[in-house]
Amino acid sequence: MSLQYPTITDIYAARKHVYQYVTPTPLHYYADLSRLAGCDIWVKHENHHAVGAFKVRGGLVLAAGLSAGERQAGLFTASTGNHGQSIAFAAKVHGIKARIAVPEKANPGKVSAMRSLDAEVIHHGKNFDEAREWIRQQAEESGGCFIGPTEESLIAGVGTYVLEIFETLPDPDYIIVPVGGGSSVCAASIVAHAINPETKVIGAQSSGAPAAQQSWKAGKPIEVAPNTFAEGVATGVPFENTQRIMRKYLNDFLLVDDAEIEAAIIHLLHLTHTLSEGAGAIPLATALRYRERFRGKKVVLVLSGGNLSVAKLRRILDRHRQQQ
Amino acid sequence: MSLQYPTITDIYAARKHVYQYVTPTPLHYYADLSRLAGCDIWVKHENHHAVGAFKVRGGLVLAAGLSAGERQAGLFTASTGNHGQSIAFAAKVHGIKARIAVPEKANPGKVSAMRSLDAEVIHHGKNFDEAREWIRQQAEESGGCFIGPTEESLIAGVGTYVLEIFETLPDPDYIIVPVGGGSSVCAASIVAHAINPETKVIGAQSSGAPAAQQSWKAGKPIEVAPNTFAEGVATGVPFENTQRIMRKYLNDFLLVDDAEIEAAIIHLLHLTHTLSEGAGAIPLATALRYRERFRGKKVVLVLSGGNLSVAKLRRILDRHRQQQ
Repeated sequence: MSLQYPTITDIYAARKHVYQYVTPTPLHYYADLSRLAGCDIWVKHENHHAVGAFKVRGGLVLAAGLSAGERQAGLFTASTGNHGQSIAFAAKVHGIKARIAVPEKANPGKVSAMRSLDAEVIHHGKNFDEAREWIRQQAEESGGCFIGPTEESLIAGVGTYVLEIFETLPDPDYIIVPVGGGSSVCAASIVAHAINPETKVIGAQSSGAPAAQQSWKAGKPIEVAPNTFAEGVATGVPFENTQRIMRKYLNDFLLVDDAEIEAAIIHLLHLTHTLSEGAGAIPLATALRYRERFRGKKVVLVLSGGNLSVAKLRRILDRHRQQQ
Repeated sequence: MSLQYPTITDIYAARKHVYQYVTPTPLHYYADLSRLAGCDIWVKHENHHAVGAFKVRGGLVLAAGLSAGERQAGLFTASTGNHGQSIAFAAKVHGIKARIAVPEKANPGKVSAMRSLDAEVIHHGKNFDEAREWIRQQAEESGGCFIGPTEESLIAGVGTYVLEIFETLPDPDYIIVPVGGGSSVCAASIVAHAINPETKVIGAQSSGAPAAQQSWKAGKPIEVAPNTFAEGVATGVPFENTQRIMRKYLNDFLLVDDAEIEAAIIHLLHLTHTLSEGAGAIPLATALRYRERFRGKKVVLVLSGGNLSVAKLRRILDRHRQQQ
């Protein structure tokens, strides 16, 4: 598949494939969060999808664009979480077989969710990279489609949530987006550039997984082994196509610590009654840490996903006993 | 205001007032919950509203129907939670003043949420009944509108979520609805009767607050002092108008224990990544406790609201250490 990047027109074209199976998510203004952060906070609730994360939009567009032969051979991908659930969901509604490689010690809850969507889940390799290389070979040998996390059609599908933001709020000053592979922040950049060039898009990541941020700053690929509980942004290797888009459009790329992400998860529970996974809470952590920069502005936080396990939630609540 | 009950036509007429300010909520199918319960489980996510509960729909319809004089005098109500937030939200978007009486020891989080919506919150009385009687007098003296929790226009507004259920899933076998004052279960009954008379509507309540259920069974008002952590259903006194609708339409009215409600909150966190308040988890607790009755059926659970405090969440997680 191509590694070009999609245009705003491609994103508009993606809408019909996305809305065949999912509904728009709300963009909510929260007065209490706004008071906490010192700016006007709007949350884009991509955690409200049935599979709990924005990625489902991309999978639907990718699946809709397959040839008959590709549909027959099925989809092959590797994932430890939301990407796999997204591909499994899209494959299921399109009647396509999905094979998803996961590392040997993958999170059992996420494996179970993929299997509930009828995906074949195969444990292989010690880590994500080993699982990915193995399933890529499997795809090649059988003529099936191997899907990486930043394909053009995935970015186009994800862009539909960004259009929804501007439909509700046409003039945000900032959109803060968590960065894993980069499909989401690139989609936000492409849409903002087309719809409202005054809107600044900010990428954000855990300081425990700064590969994409360091690569963006340096203008060349830098690999850093990730060490963060927020698996949605635990990317050790930058992706060439999303780096290219980020270098063109991104206003800034900020880091926050895991303790700040955990505190943001508790603020979201308390003030919005929303369960967020680590990645989803990074935009709020960013708005709080760099508050002077956002003071008095209209700030959209992309709550990318809600797939936090109860075990992790317990640990976070235990560590932050003092907060209500 | 009238205490007649609304027709399906009234509920259709309510749509334009509701959708001016809120968007439809999703009805999601959950494979893992379905496996747990032994039936096909769909969840109506009324917790996804910005104020976190279904009641916002009713407040919007009520506010839209006020006369110029009533708008001028403002809205008066009593609440310890979601009803007050709903009235505060509706008043704010319609530019009307809201005065909300709460008991002296009201939950500070919910008081803060109402104040963030610019409502005047007045602490008065030891319990809800004392607060209510006091604010009712205030309304009378100033010519303002006193709003009880089961007004006809509130039921009509709430009915819009039930229409949304049938738009996505036209043939549910059961809709299980938590009962506090009864506006929601009455709306569900009126809509189901009109759109699909094969659909059975089941009311459900905590066994610690069985006044509405006992009144329904006995065919006459029975008061029972409530003792449940699920404040959304902690109703000690039945309401005449909703009892009348329930007696006409309701298929059954079931009780579950608070421990079962707490377990359902954890299942929802684990399998849907959703924070539910006590009332919102009652339908799942009901599907699990009475599982033989629902086996193999299409069952819609109305997740009425998500406004659980972090303090309560901690306590529930601490008590159910064994569950994932």
